[in-house]
Amino acid sequence: MTMRTDVQRRLTDLLGPAAVIAEGPDLAPYAVDWRKLFPGQPACVVRPSSTEQVARIVQICREARAAIVPQGGNTGLAGGAVPDASGTQVVLSLNRMAAIRDVDPVGMTIEAEAGCILKVAQDAAADAGRLLPISLAAEGSATIGGVVAANAGGVNVLRYGMTRNLVLGLEVVLPDGSIAHGLRRLRKDNAGYDWKQLFIGSEGTLGIVTAAVLRLVPRPKHSVTALLSVTDPAVALRLLALAQDELGDQISAFELISATSLQLVAKHAGLKAPIAEGEWFVLVEAASSLPGLREAAEAMLGSAFEQEIALDGVIAESGAQAAQLWALREHVTESEAREGKSVKHDVSVPLTEVPRFLDEAGKALAAGAPGTRVNAFGHLGDGNIHYNVLVEAGHDAGVVNRIVHDIVAAFGGSISAEHGIGQYRVGELARYRAPVEMELARAIKRALDPDNRLNPGKVLLP
Amino acid sequence: MTMRTDVQRRLTDLLGPAAVIAEGPDLAPYAVDWRKLFPGQPACVVRPSSTEQVARIVQICREARAAIVPQGGNTGLAGGAVPDASGTQVVLSLNRMAAIRDVDPVGMTIEAEAGCILKVAQDAAADAGRLLPISLAAEGSATIGGVVAANAGGVNVLRYGMTRNLVLGLEVVLPDGSIAHGLRRLRKDNAGYDWKQLFIGSEGTLGIVTAAVLRLVPRPKHSVTALLSVTDPAVALRLLALAQDELGDQISAFELISATSLQLVAKHAGLKAPIAEGEWFVLVEAASSLPGLREAAEAMLGSAFEQEIALDGVIAESGAQAAQLWALREHVTESEAREGKSVKHDVSVPLTEVPRFLDEAGKALAAGAPGTRVNAFGHLGDGNIHYNVLVEAGHDAGVVNRIVHDIVAAFGGSISAEHGIGQYRVGELARYRAPVEMELARAIKRALDPDNRLNPGKVLLP
Repeated sequence: MTMRTDVQRRLTDLLGPAAVIAEGPDLAPYAVDWRKLFPGQPACVVRPSSTEQVARIVQICREARAAIVPQGGNTGLAGGAVPDASGTQVVLSLNRMAAIRDVDPVGMTIEAEAGCILKVAQDAAADAGRLLPISLAAEGSATIGGVVAANAGGVNVLRYGMTRNLVLGLEVVLPDGSIAHGLRRLRKDNAGYDWKQLFIGSEGTLGIVTAAVLRLVPRPKHSVTALLSVTDPAVALRLLALAQDELGDQISAFELISATSLQLVAKHAGLKAPIAEGEWFVLVEAASSLPGLREAAEAMLGSAFEQEIALDGVIAESGAQAAQLWALREHVTESEAREGKSVKHDVSVPLTEVPRFLDEAGKALAAGAPGTRVNAFGHLGDGNIHYNVLVEAGHDAGVVNRIVHDIVAAFGGSISAEHGIGQYRVGELARYRAPVEMELARAIKRALDPDNRLNPGKVLLP
Repeated sequence: MTMRTDVQRRLTDLLGPAAVIAEGPDLAPYAVDWRKLFPGQPACVVRPSSTEQVARIVQICREARAAIVPQGGNTGLAGGAVPDASGTQVVLSLNRMAAIRDVDPVGMTIEAEAGCILKVAQDAAADAGRLLPISLAAEGSATIGGVVAANAGGVNVLRYGMTRNLVLGLEVVLPDGSIAHGLRRLRKDNAGYDWKQLFIGSEGTLGIVTAAVLRLVPRPKHSVTALLSVTDPAVALRLLALAQDELGDQISAFELISATSLQLVAKHAGLKAPIAEGEWFVLVEAASSLPGLREAAEAMLGSAFEQEIALDGVIAESGAQAAQLWALREHVTESEAREGKSVKHDVSVPLTEVPRFLDEAGKALAAGAPGTRVNAFGHLGDGNIHYNVLVEAGHDAGVVNRIVHDIVAAFGGSISAEHGIGQYRVGELARYRAPVEMELARAIKRALDPDNRLNPGKVLLP
């Protein structure tokens, strides 16, 4: 009996045939990421319905010496949740563990199983009058477990932080099959090492998140959305400082969009900005429970004109107008795809270095990869730029990558601000991260998963 | 040559005699915590002036097989920063590394060395028009390194989170003497394991924090402080929900004070609350950059009276009045000390369980330790109660401890919400934390510090 059929048989004995998918069309969606960039071939897919079943699966795979690839909504962008092509890895899908166990509007917590869809959890929080402030494009299919494992970002990070900042408690199945019960609902807990931090953002390489307690926040009553044009990114930063002075921490988004991005949106989505043209645009959103938000936003806009920071600008008069402004931002990725092939970078640099980064990267590409076009946009308030480079036939993606990432590294930036490493950026991480840091990561991996059975080949190589 | 004189000589050779204190009155402040509860006897005290010197000291101590106890402002409450009585441990004080390296008001970051006093860093942020939102009683002597190592809490946690939530980057000397350079200034960085999380809150047992980059926040322009009386803690929670509905996340403090606490403050500090008596009091503070905060707070108070949530209440008319209201809260600890001996507990439970916790703990003490009196107060908005028990001669502190912590554990709470474990609560942590979690912590410790040279005997035993 091959290893593949052996582990498959044992898992079927444990869970019944309905919970194990070994072949056929049902297998396909688990074998490859949604963009179909990282095709793999699993030994089988197993779908447990309880934490105890997850623990038993881990024990069985351990005995069978099979590697496990945990999978949530499979919406990742770095190939972190799909198996390799060996046919020996077991995909452990959490999609049958989707319950919301509790929503507490006074304690402001939600407890959900790993397979719960993010949107479902958002809606449950909203029904209780609270906000789960994790918001991202894939929220209709991303799961809580995946969001935690990836330390997901999104459009609310400026105000509410990354997912890490919202995790109060975790339940995790460890590589030895034991269960760490840490579903605490405490806002403060300094009793010993905060081990849950290890599992947030480690992409399923250290343990399998089976449930989480997340913090909720008050639901703001008022919001205001504005679009402004500025001459360059340095001025956009001055606008950010002004907005922070006037609106404080009620700013929930501060997005930078290049003229190139808006030209692509106009060309392919037929949407046009309702303000005079400029080289750069900023989409600002603020939300608050306090009245007076709009007046403060109008005063801020007034100051921006007075100080000649903004060239032109508009504040949305209605929810529908706010949605129209957001549509400009949201159509950038799709319009870029219609324009042609691009090499994408999800980078961050210190906030105040964004203008110099954009300047130097642009010059380096013009010199080292002439004919490429830059489509830069993203979360300026977080220093996170989606720096995508439109390429033609003949351009080498590796060369483009190297040019951009070298400059990111020179500015003390990150080659993955929010998408993670997965299998896609394993080599890039090893290249740019200091040996002491890589060895620290390997020491952690060895301590928790000495046989490298959990999501091998992702994040770091042994 | 004894081990003690050997390591002392080698350190003196490296750093010169001025940087090594081996005996005499200068040694005393480093040998014991500020409350003088945990007296120790170091081999010597060494005071490096650079990260490279810290690394060399770690290497020398490693060769000499001497344990190292990192020390910041020595303001901890759990004996985590003082040596044992063996005379073999080297105290490594960071107090000569006190520089503020950078304050960036646009990027909203501050970079400071470990020995920088918290208050100095707060002032530097204020000078730049920003707020470093870590505020605690010891801020005039606590250091940035200690604050990070302890994951300090304080009065702003409700709004801004614990210290962990504000740490963007760390520089750490590891137990093998290598330096992990992670002083990044990035708000988003999902490139590999976020190893810095391990060093936050692990109380110097895994590495020595030598510098940190902390996040700053906008400085609110307006603030409002109110004191209200309520019948019981369950009603105080209804008031919290109301305040969150009306003021959103602009609430920066929500403190619960018992009538007993205020009676102690009246008796020993001569301060009296300016509102009618009640069984429980709530001190609320909100702050915002937006106008309209006071109107919203007045409307909230109106609703609280209408819904019969608050018995009486007052909003401070001036900064001086706000300070008077805060003085009531701030004098509780000192007044308790003047009243007599007490057994202190720094506990947290899920927010909604606070009323039942207070009820059950009170009943259990009345039954199991008759004659004791409870002085309960603290950060209700965080579920963190300082549950102090006034005892007379004949009361057994161990019995009181067991009664309180057993009930905390039954509610899924923490025996150390913000003060940490240090040496004081090592036994209690081992008693209450699940074996799987303890083993996970030991696995992390072994991976980073296999010879147990860094702050041995603190947080967890081998």
